Amino acid sequence: MTAATPDEALRAWFLGPRAENAELFERLILESLRDHIFWRRNHHPEDGFTIHEADRRRAGYDDAIARLTEELQGLLAALKRDVPFFSGRYQGHMVGEQTIAAQIGYFAAMLYNPNNVTEEVSPVTTRLELEVATQLAAMIGYAPERAWGHLCSGGTIANFEALWIARGVRYLPVALALAARDLGVPLAVRSLDGRPIDIRSQSLWALLNLEPDATLDAYHLLHESAPGGDVVAALDAHSLSTIGYQDYTRRLVAAFGDPLPAGVVLVPATAHYSWEKIVRALGIGAQRMITVPVDGSCRIDPDALWQELTRCATQHTPVLAVVSVCGTTEEGAIDRLDLVVAARDRAARELGLTFHLHSDACYGGYAAAVTRAPAGRRLSAEEIRGAHGFDWPAPEWVTAIEALAQADSVTIDPHKLGYVPYPAGALLIRDRRARALVSLDPPYLTPPGAGPSQDERFIGRWILEGSKPGAAAASVWLTHRVIPLDERGYGHIIARTVRGAHRFHAALEGNALAPFSALRFPRPDLNIVNWIVTHPSVTDLDSLNALNEGIYARLSPAADDPAYFITRTRIRSPAYDGAVLPLLAKLGVNEAMWRRDGLVVLRAVVMDPFFDGGPRMPDHVAGLVTALQAAATEALATGLQPSRATTRLV
Amino acid sequence: MTAATPDEALRAWFLGPRAENAELFERLILESLRDHIFWRRNHHPEDGFTIHEADRRRAGYDDAIARLTEELQGLLAALKRDVPFFSGRYQGHMVGEQTIAAQIGYFAAMLYNPNNVTEEVSPVTTRLELEVATQLAAMIGYAPERAWGHLCSGGTIANFEALWIARGVRYLPVALALAARDLGVPLAVRSLDGRPIDIRSQSLWALLNLEPDATLDAYHLLHESAPGGDVVAALDAHSLSTIGYQDYTRRLVAAFGDPLPAGVVLVPATAHYSWEKIVRALGIGAQRMITVPVDGSCRIDPDALWQELTRCATQHTPVLAVVSVCGTTEEGAIDRLDLVVAARDRAARELGLTFHLHSDACYGGYAAAVTRAPAGRRLSAEEIRGAHGFDWPAPEWVTAIEALAQADSVTIDPHKLGYVPYPAGALLIRDRRARALVSLDPPYLTPPGAGPSQDERFIGRWILEGSKPGAAAASVWLTHRVIPLDERGYGHIIARTVRGAHRFHAALEGNALAPFSALRFPRPDLNIVNWIVTHPSVTDLDSLNALNEGIYARLSPAADDPAYFITRTRIRSPAYDGAVLPLLAKLGVNEAMWRRDGLVVLRAVVMDPFFDGGPRMPDHVAGLVTALQAAATEALATGLQPSRATTRLV
Repeated sequence: MTAATPDEALRAWFLGPRAENAELFERLILESLRDHIFWRRNHHPEDGFTIHEADRRRAGYDDAIARLTEELQGLLAALKRDVPFFSGRYQGHMVGEQTIAAQIGYFAAMLYNPNNVTEEVSPVTTRLELEVATQLAAMIGYAPERAWGHLCSGGTIANFEALWIARGVRYLPVALALAARDLGVPLAVRSLDGRPIDIRSQSLWALLNLEPDATLDAYHLLHESAPGGDVVAALDAHSLSTIGYQDYTRRLVAAFGDPLPAGVVLVPATAHYSWEKIVRALGIGAQRMITVPVDGSCRIDPDALWQELTRCATQHTPVLAVVSVCGTTEEGAIDRLDLVVAARDRAARELGLTFHLHSDACYGGYAAAVTRAPAGRRLSAEEIRGAHGFDWPAPEWVTAIEALAQADSVTIDPHKLGYVPYPAGALLIRDRRARALVSLDPPYLTPPGAGPSQDERFIGRWILEGSKPGAAAASVWLTHRVIPLDERGYGHIIARTVRGAHRFHAALEGNALAPFSALRFPRPDLNIVNWIVTHPSVTDLDSLNALNEGIYARLSPAADDPAYFITRTRIRSPAYDGAVLPLLAKLGVNEAMWRRDGLVVLRAVVMDPFFDGGPRMPDHVAGLVTALQAAATEALATGLQPSRATTRLV
Repeated sequence: MTAATPDEALRAWFLGPRAENAELFERLILESLRDHIFWRRNHHPEDGFTIHEADRRRAGYDDAIARLTEELQGLLAALKRDVPFFSGRYQGHMVGEQTIAAQIGYFAAMLYNPNNVTEEVSPVTTRLELEVATQLAAMIGYAPERAWGHLCSGGTIANFEALWIARGVRYLPVALALAARDLGVPLAVRSLDGRPIDIRSQSLWALLNLEPDATLDAYHLLHESAPGGDVVAALDAHSLSTIGYQDYTRRLVAAFGDPLPAGVVLVPATAHYSWEKIVRALGIGAQRMITVPVDGSCRIDPDALWQELTRCATQHTPVLAVVSVCGTTEEGAIDRLDLVVAARDRAARELGLTFHLHSDACYGGYAAAVTRAPAGRRLSAEEIRGAHGFDWPAPEWVTAIEALAQADSVTIDPHKLGYVPYPAGALLIRDRRARALVSLDPPYLTPPGAGPSQDERFIGRWILEGSKPGAAAASVWLTHRVIPLDERGYGHIIARTVRGAHRFHAALEGNALAPFSALRFPRPDLNIVNWIVTHPSVTDLDSLNALNEGIYARLSPAADDPAYFITRTRIRSPAYDGAVLPLLAKLGVNEAMWRRDGLVVLRAVVMDPFFDGGPRMPDHVAGLVTALQAAATEALATGLQPSRATTRLV
């Protein structure tokens, strides 16, 4: 007797690079479509037909069908020039195949076109959205009765909301203190060292360094201490969201006589470029976003973080938020979030400073599934290594993933390692009360643990977006039902991609590219491999960058029928010194050039669970190595054109 | 010989309430699917198979298929509890049927899963997105070589971006003046009265009242006056987006010694609730959003707007933006944008005040198709009335639509009157140079009229979102190809919905609901009908509101198998005094109560082009009137429960 294995199931989860599961896929599409058609036919059949057989014999009807058919043919032909994400030959950006469940789920619900702004126009899919958010929250270890989450269009909006909420919570104590003064009521709040203090007598610096939990407790308390309408009005008179930044800035000086430096947001050097959009849009300002250097594994450097926090404390610069990344865009690096949490605790004790801790796990969040047994129990690194049969992950990796539960907010994109179609991002917050800070007309504070009410299901009041596809929720929901968020489901898929990435990393070693050689970043935390190709004749950084740009140009969608697809990025000093200086030493190239021009790095995002190969499967690892060697040979032969600007993409 | 008519084509554009076009739909779905399957099969067939026949005989494979099939059955069963937007019985929210082209286009592209963040992962659909934006821009009368636009997740994000860009442009002159001072270069700018002046010598008030065009010209000029890097650094040192609101606010005082009141945004009382989210998130502040009352037709009151502008000028309060609505959420009212444009011109002349003019045409934007002949010529009101055969629109309506071309930005949601699946919103800006104000690392300024470059196709750098579905672009593109943006395409659909709405409006007259009667808002500008049901026994506002809530409760998805679906809203004083006071007079109810509790209004959004009926078609106008009468009777019989809070939804 043989037990069913996840690796067997894996073959049923995707349409397949040769559309091997086409029959199954077509059957499910037709089933979903016909089911919907019969729903329509059975809805008040007494209404009769609106479109009749005779209508179909009109010239206008015929013309319209002809036009539709022809234009569709045109679209289908055009789409042939799209990028073959489904193929083992595509190891480029963070986009890959989608699960069958996700595609069918999307299609089935799209026929109904529910709008998840409110249950009134999406009674089914709004429930599915909240269910999906609960599943993701449980996966990362949030307490389900305290946490809250929802889906949105993607990581940028999810991260935007996280920082928007963070700003609201961080500045709330100021409004609480001024409102309590106006109302003439005392208001106790827990100070950073755990003592109850009256919020009205605190300095601005102390107010901006209260813990989120303590702040939300005080918010709750104030509502209980005075009539609802009075509290709302008193808070509105002093809240950033109501009076706006300009008057708020003036208010701080008037009320506290203490013009502290403007608040900052700390992000690692690896943070996605969208963080800059976010701080600009929110009015925090790009220059108030401070970049913390990374270490040799492209993880946030905890010592550098601590130095920055110390500097902020010394200058009394409020730290609105610290962003940590779980699965960086360029390298798939997983920050040691446990060390960031430790820094937060230490800062509270030693510096009297605290902040909102956000984990941008848009890419890596689903990797938490690797650490979960089917019933939800957390697995040790040893158990995980045993289950997947290769030397990954390290115990510190598991500790870092476990620390997600300590972050105040976490963003995870189902449309990345959840393998669902665009658009699907998720925002998760540890304390659901915090969402009141961005909500419209919050009907008072939702108590922790309160079940879904009608307000609960008017999702649009709690989030930035309004109308949004219920189909996305159905898509994520169905794929989670079929592929669970544990080691046998998503954990299995992701472990396979990491194994593939490690195999490719190993295949670049030694003489694989001779006469070229590859300088690799350390073996990755997840499934993204970074390397640089060099050649004995290449001795300066300009040529090195040009060589790697030349390779990329031959292995990108812009090339003429590329055999394989990879991507490239350009990393910069000083943020990446920790990762790059060890490589430069090996290359013998000039550090000054690095500081001026940065370094072009080749990159493969291995989202393909089949890249690892196996018996009777294509060996795309070997194929990609061969293609790299060929591209490098060609690039060198046609001459290297230096280029100093490369935009970070996607 | 009979010429093909749009009304004949209309029957081919939708699946139909009884899925009358099911065969066609199924054929096109299968064609798209199989086409994609063969694309996969023909992609490097030498790679062989990844999933083999033998794999399909494994227990794990079987289990996975069984699980997928069962869970899908569960989802399909659940979806049966969704709302039948496709039916003539649904005249509720702004959601209706989708066109076949839109659904097939979405599905076909979704199989490829392109990501319209950049052409590198969406070579086909990024082009379609830019094409679609150009079509919409042309429809509203923007000059194609100057304008720019893109798709996003929906109206809230599109409006957010419009105001984000507006903020950037409005505050740019301050940065320009300070940067020019730092660089020691003169910088000429066109003043509001048309004279060239040196920007460095201007007062803060004057700087905040430069026209957008003049500002962008000066931006361009400064880049030409000094080396690129220096200009960027000098601007970054003084720009809100880089230094943030807190330091910016302090900077204004330091540099100009002139702490003007914080900037405001003027919106009509009818503005969608998301505007409040937007001003909160951007840091402008909810209290800096000033509501301008509306007139008896729920259009922005031009006199009230003028008074507000005068007040702002007197107090030297900068007006960041004026928002006008084309198709209000509650009433489908179309603001007399031509009068708002006139107010802008007059304010520049008489008050030395100007602003960014935005039209929120998320709902009504597609109605501009009514005013276009197939070759694009603008039609007169008379021509339009002739084409559609009923008494609509008035000449002023056409003038208001024509004025869209004068707005600095316009937002239009294809997922509303474009009849495409969620998510699809569009932002259009009149002067493409303005997008540099929110872009990341703008590669200098794109000159007006420049064709699409590589940067152009990295859409993610110009917008708030990052990853987003290329499928949405394919969906909008295909439907625009099949159903043109003119009187024979979308214009025909929308004219039919207006005719249906007018028919229903007329059907509510007189004794239709006896013993109840309906008090109607004026005949609508578009396809949304608002009315109040009353009864001789109902003499106070509490009971009146309760009666209408009771009717709604019986004709909403929350009811047990409602015969028809409508919605309701609660409008408030003083913003709606212009529309409500004439009704209250007829009702004889207490004005004080209105001022305290607002008025519950029933609402039908007629997006259904078949609602108007015709030979051998169901008469849903009559059906809805009957259902209303029955619901009112039941509501009165079971007693009226007063309720004072009704959230504005969707």
